[in-house]
Amino acid sequence: MKIVLDAMGGDHAPGVVIDGAVQAAKELAVEIILVGREETVRQELARHDTAGLALSVVHAGEVIEMDEHVDAVKRKRDASIRVGMRMVREGQADAFVSAGNSGAVMASAIFDIRRIRGIKRPALAVLYPAAPTPVLLIDNGANTDPDPENLLQFAQMGAAYVERLWGIKNPRVAIVSSGEEADKGNRLVRDTFPLLQASGLNFVGNAEGKDVTKGIADVVVTDGFTGNVMIKLSEGLVSFLVRFMKHQLVDGLLNKVALVLLLPGLLAMLPGLLLWIPALRRIARRMDYAEYGGAPLLGVDGVVIIAHGRSNAKAIRNAVRVARDSVRVGLVEVIRAASAGASASESAVAAEQDPSESSS
Amino acid sequence: MKIVLDAMGGDHAPGVVIDGAVQAAKELAVEIILVGREETVRQELARHDTAGLALSVVHAGEVIEMDEHVDAVKRKRDASIRVGMRMVREGQADAFVSAGNSGAVMASAIFDIRRIRGIKRPALAVLYPAAPTPVLLIDNGANTDPDPENLLQFAQMGAAYVERLWGIKNPRVAIVSSGEEADKGNRLVRDTFPLLQASGLNFVGNAEGKDVTKGIADVVVTDGFTGNVMIKLSEGLVSFLVRFMKHQLVDGLLNKVALVLLLPGLLAMLPGLLLWIPALRRIARRMDYAEYGGAPLLGVDGVVIIAHGRSNAKAIRNAVRVARDSVRVGLVEVIRAASAGASASESAVAAEQDPSESSS
Repeated sequence: MKIVLDAMGGDHAPGVVIDGAVQAAKELAVEIILVGREETVRQELARHDTAGLALSVVHAGEVIEMDEHVDAVKRKRDASIRVGMRMVREGQADAFVSAGNSGAVMASAIFDIRRIRGIKRPALAVLYPAAPTPVLLIDNGANTDPDPENLLQFAQMGAAYVERLWGIKNPRVAIVSSGEEADKGNRLVRDTFPLLQASGLNFVGNAEGKDVTKGIADVVVTDGFTGNVMIKLSEGLVSFLVRFMKHQLVDGLLNKVALVLLLPGLLAMLPGLLLWIPALRRIARRMDYAEYGGAPLLGVDGVVIIAHGRSNAKAIRNAVRVARDSVRVGLVEVIRAASAGASASESAVAAEQDPSESSS
Repeated sequence: MKIVLDAMGGDHAPGVVIDGAVQAAKELAVEIILVGREETVRQELARHDTAGLALSVVHAGEVIEMDEHVDAVKRKRDASIRVGMRMVREGQADAFVSAGNSGAVMASAIFDIRRIRGIKRPALAVLYPAAPTPVLLIDNGANTDPDPENLLQFAQMGAAYVERLWGIKNPRVAIVSSGEEADKGNRLVRDTFPLLQASGLNFVGNAEGKDVTKGIADVVVTDGFTGNVMIKLSEGLVSFLVRFMKHQLVDGLLNKVALVLLLPGLLAMLPGLLLWIPALRRIARRMDYAEYGGAPLLGVDGVVIIAHGRSNAKAIRNAVRVARDSVRVGLVEVIRAASAGASASESAVAAEQDPSESSS
């Protein structure tokens, strides 16, 4: 299996991308094709012992920067993102992975790889880690103003992904809303609700913000605007809590005195703390985005995985793992089949929906 | 000053409401009028020594339940919420406080007290505690599908509130979005952006989810759907983290052994831990919604404070404190003045806005 990795994408590219590529080539039994400025990539590769690893380099003369407008996709035909996408399109590689400008990756995927027939809008599906069981949140920013039919397709794609990739049979699907009852939510949610009810999916109804963190569903559908706010708010809240605790407990003279007084006790606690190491490790791992690797862009005619812009080497390696697993289960075929089911049930319920409904 | 308190509103009403009313009457130098089923209220009051306290009871024969549809407002003329609102309307009280069905409180406020002239939609303004400095998030659920003009008014009302109640001069205003750049966000945000830029407010631009937790603005404007999801997601995330940590560190045999081994160390740490008490108290207080009391409904022609449905006695007492402070500073006049400014600047910028803008 060949996976193209965007060597130029991410806040810490190309260094950490190359580090992650080497890890992936060593551990994941896949062939990695690094796409980017060849000279730069080869310089970075020279830092590693790559003897015997299935690592190759394909030159791409341009780079789309992290904060560049998505229009750059049209202009920069030789950007690493576009060269990589075309390799997937033309069957020279099985999947594309990038930690680069996510808007540009999505635009290039739609432009160069194309959508699966019948899919109106591809969507970005991310794992929401702050719940007792994993939750797939879809969409996370690809579509800021979707319509009810788009959301129905997101639900269908998300459910198919979770069923196939996570092995959850008949996954529970919910829609993010501002209240539990069926008539709560904004116009988009209220219009989407009946489509989901009639979809044949295991639809469990509205999920309020707190319900998402309780894991009341396996797949949680929302528009890309709300999904983006939810993910970034959660990331921000966790780092605020860590900073706030540290500030309250460590900063200042009184706290320094307290810490000195705590030292002998901490030493006496060492045996107990050693027993806690596995638990502390599980906590750290759960809160570490790098464990989850990358978010699949569902609905395009190829496997495209978008990693966090802040990705470190471990995150890159794990994004390659997600790509590999997606190729293995035939993700594109899975989504194609889900989409075929979607268009059948969609036309059946279109009449039930009341388009005249307006907000109170 | 007379404050009407909805004795029947909240998950733990009337018990904790009466407890909170007694606390407020003792500590806040205000007169409390409890509105609700007189017999029930008097029974609850009998548990307390109320001699010398300015506490009275006004009978209301009906109750709007927590999960009842908002339509009940029209039908139940004698509900505690409606009786209380009419007392404010008729000048028999200065403010109304309820931990009851928030949709019903908002509907009754609009119906019985009416909006301030020029305000198109009242909005619920809540304090978002998970940031280094307090952030006023407006709207939190009153308006699930507002238009750009509504959001502009929310910003103006929120800024006026923060300036007058919190004493922050020329407060920074931001709008919740899915990206920092001016062209990011959904259609509503992109259409509202130029109105905020031209508003004369201290507009600092888009705030992503993580920026809210960093406190990059004093007032953060959003539609009620997104605001509701943000608040409930944050509450849920904090309790998930607490449960998850506890589960990982305390549950299971290995952890029990670890805890026993930690005991001698903990004892040795006692002197240091004592020094930490003020810090731990500050952390607990910051995370305790009850400290913040209640959220003002801005834009109605009277002071209306909505407390959390889960309110305990302290939360009720603090909601009365927010009501008292709002009356003291002349909140209604403050919002009226802000609204007058709003309508002037609004007509000036209406022409600048491009109504044909559509999503990508």
